[in-house]
Amino acid sequence: MSKFASIASLRAACLDLPSGYGTSAEEVARREASLTKPPGSLGRLEDVVPWLARWQGRAPPRLDNVEVLVFAGSHGVAVQGVSAYPAEVTAQMVKNFAAGGAAINQLARVAQASLRVIPLSLDEPTADFTLAPAMDEQAFLAAVASGYDAVSPHADLLCLGEMGISNTTAAAAMAAALFGGGGKRWAGHGTGVDTHGLARKQAVIDKALAHHADVLGDPLAIAAALGGRELAAILGATLAARRQGVPVLLDGFVSTAAAAPLKKLNADALDHALAGHVSAEAGHRLLLAELGIAPLLDLGMRLGEASGAALAVLVLRAALACHTGMATFAEAEVSDSR
Amino acid sequence: MSKFASIASLRAACLDLPSGYGTSAEEVARREASLTKPPGSLGRLEDVVPWLARWQGRAPPRLDNVEVLVFAGSHGVAVQGVSAYPAEVTAQMVKNFAAGGAAINQLARVAQASLRVIPLSLDEPTADFTLAPAMDEQAFLAAVASGYDAVSPHADLLCLGEMGISNTTAAAAMAAALFGGGGKRWAGHGTGVDTHGLARKQAVIDKALAHHADVLGDPLAIAAALGGRELAAILGATLAARRQGVPVLLDGFVSTAAAAPLKKLNADALDHALAGHVSAEAGHRLLLAELGIAPLLDLGMRLGEASGAALAVLVLRAALACHTGMATFAEAEVSDSR
Repeated sequence: MSKFASIASLRAACLDLPSGYGTSAEEVARREASLTKPPGSLGRLEDVVPWLARWQGRAPPRLDNVEVLVFAGSHGVAVQGVSAYPAEVTAQMVKNFAAGGAAINQLARVAQASLRVIPLSLDEPTADFTLAPAMDEQAFLAAVASGYDAVSPHADLLCLGEMGISNTTAAAAMAAALFGGGGKRWAGHGTGVDTHGLARKQAVIDKALAHHADVLGDPLAIAAALGGRELAAILGATLAARRQGVPVLLDGFVSTAAAAPLKKLNADALDHALAGHVSAEAGHRLLLAELGIAPLLDLGMRLGEASGAALAVLVLRAALACHTGMATFAEAEVSDSR
Repeated sequence: MSKFASIASLRAACLDLPSGYGTSAEEVARREASLTKPPGSLGRLEDVVPWLARWQGRAPPRLDNVEVLVFAGSHGVAVQGVSAYPAEVTAQMVKNFAAGGAAINQLARVAQASLRVIPLSLDEPTADFTLAPAMDEQAFLAAVASGYDAVSPHADLLCLGEMGISNTTAAAAMAAALFGGGGKRWAGHGTGVDTHGLARKQAVIDKALAHHADVLGDPLAIAAALGGRELAAILGATLAARRQGVPVLLDGFVSTAAAAPLKKLNADALDHALAGHVSAEAGHRLLLAELGIAPLLDLGMRLGEASGAALAVLVLRAALACHTGMATFAEAEVSDSR
């Protein structure tokens, strides 16, 4: 249970995080070095297995129970015309997820992952954050708790994604508030706004930054003022995963921006999180660079729904299969390097 | 059957290639545009499905029968000390493939692909190409034929990889001969040679380019003089795949260099081939740029064995699952963009 009665208790939890299991990571790295391939020749496939081991506390790590959580939220700022799609698409897509018709349904199946979609008060949009905080403290903590409580400690890996028309505007506003620069630096085309829409989006972000200037020093206040329920839930889920020994794959710009306040509060708070991919949404590459996270895939995707994270599960499965299935130099009687 | 009695008949086959099935590609692209996602939001996943359809001549395309072919060869130039591993490792690794202990065994299994390893006269290394052509015309045509004849017209996708101690030296020499620049431009650390080894490798390549200066205008003569049997076989397999309607995933630097002469002979000869990944071997990114091929993955791998190609099969499977499994806007009653 989350038990965050106040921003202060949430903040305290963010500052008190386990640091992983170094001995599991070392055990995995030792075996990796004995396998029949030149050292390092599997590139990032060799890095992700000790990373899984460190955060699971298990050598070898497992990927038997991979969970995809998609949080959906509704955004007051949508009235500003910042998306190429009408706001009702969020609820329509939640139905599409339930019916199995969305991209993430197919990708989760291919990745052999379970998929859970969690709509968060879709009929009560957050406030338009150009005029007021998107969420008050109570609504923010409730959304964080929905994410926190959705994480199973039995998961071997968690993919975190979202759906919410207008939420790239919220993500860009949060990124700007956390890392500096205005709408021009962080706004992108999202689901496909045209040039006028993009200019509107930039102006909306700049207006929001000015309106909330007094909270820009506090990462959690930024998440409440400029984020959305699905972003707060991703923050909560990322925090819960860390505290429960579950490594995390973040998805695109929104998912990464949602978790970013944790890193601002605590420099190593995202060490258990990788980015499944870098999205085509302009701000994502920039944000990953600010966070020091190297994405696994770069395929020009920009859908959200945890789609890039789910795809990256396949890379982790391949890496783990190599780690556990390959012969050692000694077993295979292959000469090591001279 | 290959039936290449001479370099001239091989050259003629390379110049007479089918151009794919545009109507299948268009049919796929039309469905893709109707699926419940913003247009283009699945990035390269949306490109690879029409590409598969174009070369299979089928909409939707299939990935029921994915084949991985790994050709192994033995290189006379190994005596020049251009690898971190002794030459006998090639045969030892072929045994490891047969026993299921190598990386490609695990990756092919994860990719649900069949794996066939084809050793090519491992006890008769090619000539040291600093002194003589690696292969005479007969040996070259025989190696091309081994690759050509290994391709099943029933394959839905073919991954082409290799094993051969010292073959990044051959690949770099071929790339230099085809695209200009010397050993310094194209040589990399391969399986892990040190600085001295790299300098030796560069000098070996420059010596070979000087020795074979008279054939550098002829792509097929370059492949015979500076390549190796496994590289010639990959060229043959790439050609056969094109003629038999089988799309190809190339692997790393060696696999790409092996196929590159086809593109020099015929500008669209590699349109049915994608690169599964870009390798950490220095010359690969450069070579892909020369060929105008954008790799799917960039994970710092540099193992060969078709490992990067097999991993990329997972991306194609994910793309195809989205294409065939997703609901259309109409089916899901989701509003299209405004």
